[in-house]
Amino acid sequence: MKSLKIAGKTGECEIAIGQSIEDIKINAEKLVVITDRNVKKFHGERFPEAEIIEIGLGERIKTLDTVSTLYEKFLDMELDRSSLVMGIGGGIVCDVAGFAATTYMRGVNFGFVPTTILAQVDASIGGKNGVNFKGYKNMVGTVQQPRFVLCDVALLKTLPEKEVRNGLAEVVKQAAIGDAALFSFLEENVEQTLLLEAEIMEKIVHDSIVIKTKIVEKDETERHERMKLNFGHTIAHAIEKTAGISHGEAVSIGMIVESKISVANGMMKKAELERLKGLLEKIGLPTTLKANISDAIRKDKKRRGNVVKMPVLNGIGDSKIIDLRVEDLEAVVNDMC
Amino acid sequence: MKSLKIAGKTGECEIAIGQSIEDIKINAEKLVVITDRNVKKFHGERFPEAEIIEIGLGERIKTLDTVSTLYEKFLDMELDRSSLVMGIGGGIVCDVAGFAATTYMRGVNFGFVPTTILAQVDASIGGKNGVNFKGYKNMVGTVQQPRFVLCDVALLKTLPEKEVRNGLAEVVKQAAIGDAALFSFLEENVEQTLLLEAEIMEKIVHDSIVIKTKIVEKDETERHERMKLNFGHTIAHAIEKTAGISHGEAVSIGMIVESKISVANGMMKKAELERLKGLLEKIGLPTTLKANISDAIRKDKKRRGNVVKMPVLNGIGDSKIIDLRVEDLEAVVNDMC
Repeated sequence: MKSLKIAGKTGECEIAIGQSIEDIKINAEKLVVITDRNVKKFHGERFPEAEIIEIGLGERIKTLDTVSTLYEKFLDMELDRSSLVMGIGGGIVCDVAGFAATTYMRGVNFGFVPTTILAQVDASIGGKNGVNFKGYKNMVGTVQQPRFVLCDVALLKTLPEKEVRNGLAEVVKQAAIGDAALFSFLEENVEQTLLLEAEIMEKIVHDSIVIKTKIVEKDETERHERMKLNFGHTIAHAIEKTAGISHGEAVSIGMIVESKISVANGMMKKAELERLKGLLEKIGLPTTLKANISDAIRKDKKRRGNVVKMPVLNGIGDSKIIDLRVEDLEAVVNDMC
Repeated sequence: MKSLKIAGKTGECEIAIGQSIEDIKINAEKLVVITDRNVKKFHGERFPEAEIIEIGLGERIKTLDTVSTLYEKFLDMELDRSSLVMGIGGGIVCDVAGFAATTYMRGVNFGFVPTTILAQVDASIGGKNGVNFKGYKNMVGTVQQPRFVLCDVALLKTLPEKEVRNGLAEVVKQAAIGDAALFSFLEENVEQTLLLEAEIMEKIVHDSIVIKTKIVEKDETERHERMKLNFGHTIAHAIEKTAGISHGEAVSIGMIVESKISVANGMMKKAELERLKGLLEKIGLPTTLKANISDAIRKDKKRRGNVVKMPVLNGIGDSKIIDLRVEDLEAVVNDMC
């Protein structure tokens, strides 16, 4: 088992990687678990004793209406500040549970047991949470560290293959922006990774979280440094909305589109773009773009005035933030459609 | 003009008392003002140049639906992190605007120009914001300092007399929990206060804010010290819901009920309870209770398990937090109905 700590302005978060969900210790007068049907079906028997709230499945339930339903259940269960809310599930469960917990009574204690790769390395880490609004991703939310995140890699074994590939898109992103050694490790161990071998997964999840926590500690509320974590996401959020593909697939395509901007601007070698493309394709992720996404880009929440602040690669394992005019971004995108 | 600063964990807030709204300086690419019909009618001509969003009137619009409407307008206006949201109005406008601003895009810059006594001394100060849920007050919200609060006492001149009395209930509360000199000043200057004489109001607003800011700086997220500010409110929130009276009237009654608990427990002299009652009555506020509020108390958000944490007076100008069993509180309340 490995452990990490995030000491953020909004609180401290203990992260345990490789611990079993059955060994979790609860220090609260009342425990409320938020989960979904699938997670409960596969892992419900291993949950700690708690009142359980099931939310629906899929991105379309990541809304204020779902949060409002949670508030109602919290009220019925007489949840209060001595209680603990635990999200057990993927990124959607964690994002929704975190937003509900940080706003109910202006904030009750909460923690996560993420059950997907995506949630273990990304969604559950860093204190961001929230919901979509009018189809725009994560338009409403808060920044607040959970008390704990428990990453039990055994939970990943029940994931569908597509979900494994999606999660690995974020792992590749994390490695690409900040850890060339992890990137090489992934290149050398694609097969074992796709088979979710426990030892390999513990290393990958741990190293990915380290990259994210280092960045989050420098910049919790995303004024600059934290934006690096959005590598691939400026495009991804727009594609997800218009093309209806999964987040991981969208991030994979987004990383390639955004790296072409790096290459075009002389920041990154073409050979490194090819390495990135090669790894994504070995994992089984898409790398080409087919959709008009200009309108969605214009409303993307990372925009400041008519300039997009966007993270790009200087090369594998090294990234920075640049200002790109929306028109220039649109031109690159339209060129590729 | 007087100025103060709150240096909270969630940000720094500059407070200006006695500055004119017309002298306000805006440092943002886009300014969005949230206000209501009445405030716009009386003071709209003095607003800085901005896109204006009017919300409805009264406690019943302090809901997630109203916040959702604001998100929609923010999206239409292409509000982003370089923009500033300014709430100009009473406590409801400030609470709703603050919650929308702290959650849209996980937080955009915001500030307040409170236009009622209640909002100047209480609602706009301290970083708490939020909305009601299923009739329970402030059940959903966040804690985040606004960038600034500008208290222009000239704006108070258009307030209806009832609103003046309501606001003074919070001033009396502030003095009672932490400033015996302000309490005496109020006793000596009730008439000039009710006439809203500018010099008197500047002093009262300033001194009240000082009491609140001192407490907020010690305890921003309400683990203990900040609870003192809820003197009168355990009962008030319950009465407001069930008896349909105004917040100020409810706080006035709440202070008396809660002080009777102090007197009964030997923490406060009966003569001081009489002083408190005397001042409230001179202001024209009610001091007796007629409603069954046990159910509402049980669901009050200050509750931890079956114990209510409640601030009570040790005497005029001095307060502390006690743990009271819900049954004991209900017994005192039922005794008074």
